[in-house]
Amino acid sequence: MRIDILTVLPEMLESPLGCSILKRAQDKGLAQIVVHNLRDYTTNKHRKVDDYPFGGEAGMVMQIEPVDRAISHLKSERDYDEVIFTSPDGEQFSQPMANRMSMLENIIILCGHYKGVDYRIREHLVTREITVGDYVLTGGELPALVITDAIVRLIPGAIGDEQSALSDSFQDNLLAPPIYTRPAEYKGWKVPDILLSGHQARIDEWRHQQAVERTRRLRPGLLDE
Amino acid sequence: MRIDILTVLPEMLESPLGCSILKRAQDKGLAQIVVHNLRDYTTNKHRKVDDYPFGGEAGMVMQIEPVDRAISHLKSERDYDEVIFTSPDGEQFSQPMANRMSMLENIIILCGHYKGVDYRIREHLVTREITVGDYVLTGGELPALVITDAIVRLIPGAIGDEQSALSDSFQDNLLAPPIYTRPAEYKGWKVPDILLSGHQARIDEWRHQQAVERTRRLRPGLLDE
Repeated sequence: MRIDILTVLPEMLESPLGCSILKRAQDKGLAQIVVHNLRDYTTNKHRKVDDYPFGGEAGMVMQIEPVDRAISHLKSERDYDEVIFTSPDGEQFSQPMANRMSMLENIIILCGHYKGVDYRIREHLVTREITVGDYVLTGGELPALVITDAIVRLIPGAIGDEQSALSDSFQDNLLAPPIYTRPAEYKGWKVPDILLSGHQARIDEWRHQQAVERTRRLRPGLLDE
Repeated sequence: MRIDILTVLPEMLESPLGCSILKRAQDKGLAQIVVHNLRDYTTNKHRKVDDYPFGGEAGMVMQIEPVDRAISHLKSERDYDEVIFTSPDGEQFSQPMANRMSMLENIIILCGHYKGVDYRIREHLVTREITVGDYVLTGGELPALVITDAIVRLIPGAIGDEQSALSDSFQDNLLAPPIYTRPAEYKGWKVPDILLSGHQARIDEWRHQQAVERTRRLRPGLLDE
């Protein structure tokens, strides 16, 4: 899988893409993540990618031309399944969406910045608008990292123990049950006896009950899906 | 405002905290963001912070002891309003929550990692569990950055143009209207005439109509809140 990220702040993405699972997935050849500086696609000498909004509002707006040139350049090299724009009013990103996207070949993620992007980018160049949640961030860089991380960790081989991803929250529309590790007692706080019992069938039953009970209490909507 | 982030991957946070608004807010003294390596709070010689789960499941679990030691150390130095844990089954992070949190003095954000954290951490040490969305990520580092970015940009002076934050999506329970910048025509795609008209009152009315229409179509739930 290849993910091309278009941004005006490529340096912001460096450490998260160079660490942990995202680094390992790239080192193993499971995912290729390429960051492009939109300023490299400008034609003006100051490499400016933003301008004032029409109609006199506060803030600056990302211009269509460098975005169009960057996307056209990438599309001339390979086919893309989606051109994703991260925006607070996009479709809500979710685990089922991450599962589906982890099976795509090539995607582009455009990171918005400033007050926003020229709306014609969204109408004509973007194929899918996604939000990671109902809150406003400085730019699309952190959402692009969130989407990339959620997708890449699902590619077989990306995380060490595949069983581990299958038992994550949401994979069966249930929250994960509580987990504990050593010491069995810390400052008087004890691990539930059942987990120390060695009865695997009863432990599995307890875990399922806990998962259902926690889901009912904390995310009842998941049980209806 | 001071934000202390506890993590096993401090290097992952470097570039996002050293860029853009988060860097500027720290340089201006508006926010102090301090990253702590949980391994510095271990007592074993391998600086190990994880162990196998009780009851035989896949994946590793973050242990309570280094987390407790780190939090106790910080609390001995100052009072904290919240100890936040980022978890997929926490309370949904939202713009109103970001607004309220931007007025706090000191918060700790604990980043989970591995299969999860020992549940006693959540029961006894954490005061608030927050999720940035219904999807699973490799660790709590990206959610901690999302929360930090959403909060810090609301501190007066953090973004250049304060008017700009007030007209963001969600601040009045409406999505933002479309925005455009030069050129007025690109590849035959035109900016709406009204925005070039110079009639500010009509432009403002058009913007409000567009915001209401987009909200009704894309996020009808916001209109009921």
